[in-house]
Amino acid sequence: MMITDAEFSCMLSAQICTEKKTILSVDDILALIGDHCHGVIGQLTEDWGEVLFSALKRAGGTAFSNMAVGYNNVDVDAANRNGIAIGNTPGVLTETTAELAASLSVAAARRIVEADQFMRAGLYDGWLPHLFVGNLLKGQTVGVIGAGRIGSAYARMMIEGFKMNLIYFDLYQSTRLEKFVTAYGQFLKANGEQPVTWKRASSMEEVLREADVISLHPVLDKTTYHLINPERLAMMKKEAVLVNASRGPVIDEVALVEHLRANPMFRVGLDVFEDEPYMKPGLAEMKNAVVVPHIASASKWTREGMATLAALNVLGKIKGYPVWGNPNAVEPFLDEKAAPPPACPSIVNAKQLGLPSSKL
Amino acid sequence: MMITDAEFSCMLSAQICTEKKTILSVDDILALIGDHCHGVIGQLTEDWGEVLFSALKRAGGTAFSNMAVGYNNVDVDAANRNGIAIGNTPGVLTETTAELAASLSVAAARRIVEADQFMRAGLYDGWLPHLFVGNLLKGQTVGVIGAGRIGSAYARMMIEGFKMNLIYFDLYQSTRLEKFVTAYGQFLKANGEQPVTWKRASSMEEVLREADVISLHPVLDKTTYHLINPERLAMMKKEAVLVNASRGPVIDEVALVEHLRANPMFRVGLDVFEDEPYMKPGLAEMKNAVVVPHIASASKWTREGMATLAALNVLGKIKGYPVWGNPNAVEPFLDEKAAPPPACPSIVNAKQLGLPSSKL
Repeated sequence: MMITDAEFSCMLSAQICTEKKTILSVDDILALIGDHCHGVIGQLTEDWGEVLFSALKRAGGTAFSNMAVGYNNVDVDAANRNGIAIGNTPGVLTETTAELAASLSVAAARRIVEADQFMRAGLYDGWLPHLFVGNLLKGQTVGVIGAGRIGSAYARMMIEGFKMNLIYFDLYQSTRLEKFVTAYGQFLKANGEQPVTWKRASSMEEVLREADVISLHPVLDKTTYHLINPERLAMMKKEAVLVNASRGPVIDEVALVEHLRANPMFRVGLDVFEDEPYMKPGLAEMKNAVVVPHIASASKWTREGMATLAALNVLGKIKGYPVWGNPNAVEPFLDEKAAPPPACPSIVNAKQLGLPSSKL
Repeated sequence: MMITDAEFSCMLSAQICTEKKTILSVDDILALIGDHCHGVIGQLTEDWGEVLFSALKRAGGTAFSNMAVGYNNVDVDAANRNGIAIGNTPGVLTETTAELAASLSVAAARRIVEADQFMRAGLYDGWLPHLFVGNLLKGQTVGVIGAGRIGSAYARMMIEGFKMNLIYFDLYQSTRLEKFVTAYGQFLKANGEQPVTWKRASSMEEVLREADVISLHPVLDKTTYHLINPERLAMMKKEAVLVNASRGPVIDEVALVEHLRANPMFRVGLDVFEDEPYMKPGLAEMKNAVVVPHIASASKWTREGMATLAALNVLGKIKGYPVWGNPNAVEPFLDEKAAPPPACPSIVNAKQLGLPSSKL
């Protein structure tokens, strides 16, 4: 979406790109910016670097916002050089993304996709004791690698929903999560039930060896590229479930296909892929995989929230509003009954650009 | 499985039917019983009535056990007339069945099967804001029709796991569930979170109108046949999720197919079917349906437990053991490290046959 002056300088007009293309190239976007554009709302699939930011600056622009919480498609240094504020949309993806990871976990544990295809193919001819036997989650162990906002929300869904015990690995201690699980275990006990337990692992390998269901929630950087490699796959239980709704390159996908082939009861749920939008050869044929096209944040509430926050980031910068104090507490911007606060919800390079912070 | 005398009268031998047939006919079973058989372990797909029970009696038999919790395939009156004890396997299906209903709920809510087929077909060509947008469960309402053991376990998974509010309908008040949800809401509040709420509906229609995700857990009888009919489907929200892991005929499946066709955002998760193992015409083509072949109890733990309990029912009756006091507390029979208690775990017609009850 390109935001430009209208004929009257006090008004803003928004141009919405309606091209049928799924992904816009740098040249496509250059043409859309033209010589007069105050701000742009873009997507993770676009490559925002020096070329686009300098073009946006020449067109009179000062603001760009991803419609995403991540911004690994953005060269923030280039934006800083050109004085362009970079917005993102945190605070509205956590629950929807964690729910997708939980959906993939249970769908993989109970072989839902495989069983659905069997049923649709007309292969079912009567109840059998051995048909699609899967994993009972209750009392098993959920492993979380990366216990930030999404990882912690996911952990709680599996712990509270299915009474799983937690083992997690993170460079930082997740005191909040630990305290909650302790309190929840005490609550269960007080109600005459078996309490759940938690453990912070001293290594990622400890999680991989001990957990029955493992979900990956690290950030993607050099240290997490191919975090799941042949050696680490070999450490996991033969009937484990592995879920990835973070970033594709965290898993060595070629090695994963090999592992799925050799271990038919090992199951995987994937929302992201190494060569997205493509899958590595063989993955599409694996019955023990559930594969969905990067839909972790695909709930109506979240997608509307992302669009609203991205628009308010760009609009707020153009209007000269200060930057909101806590980008993870964005509820006031999403209240349909009240006007949004006069602030930019989340600008990731506010400090570098010296933008004022909201006192609200 | 047929259990007969061995050559030595003090020993029992077990004959396991290894026929490749999925479903045995009455004639198949008659031939297997032969003229010497003390007890049989059978399945829901078999038709146990006067013919089989009188044949079993003539062969010297006194015990039959379904490897299932239900026994709508068994004519208990005919068993009573022939003095045959009827066993079933409660106590080990609850969690596995409730987890399957939860799996179907989240898979339907997030369109996992549909999205998986899209991905496998190579149709994904890049992230799009409108691709497979589904339902965020947090803060929505889960509706449960029939709040017995499985319905209550399912309710808790959705309430605790996804912070959904509960509305339920049952002829009997589920005081235990209500108390738990109240306590859990207070626990959340004490931890600075939004509490969850519950409501017992005065009619089934109230649940259908208000809930976002609805799971059916009634028993199947004349009053629940086609409980979900065209009128009731029309009451539900256009974007609701309906789950059935109870019995197929609870839903008018022809009407359901029509409703799915007319309401593309209405989604259904089905483990059971009206004409099982078949689906009504059109259902297999519906993208907004998740269909699995009666695998609600298909976890390793449960299936092993069912087999163990069914065998111990038959063996216990043959040995003249009394009947276990609480058939839902069968853990002592499943402890691999200790000998099972000298009792039949669960005999449904113990009273009618005047069998003694265990003091254990």
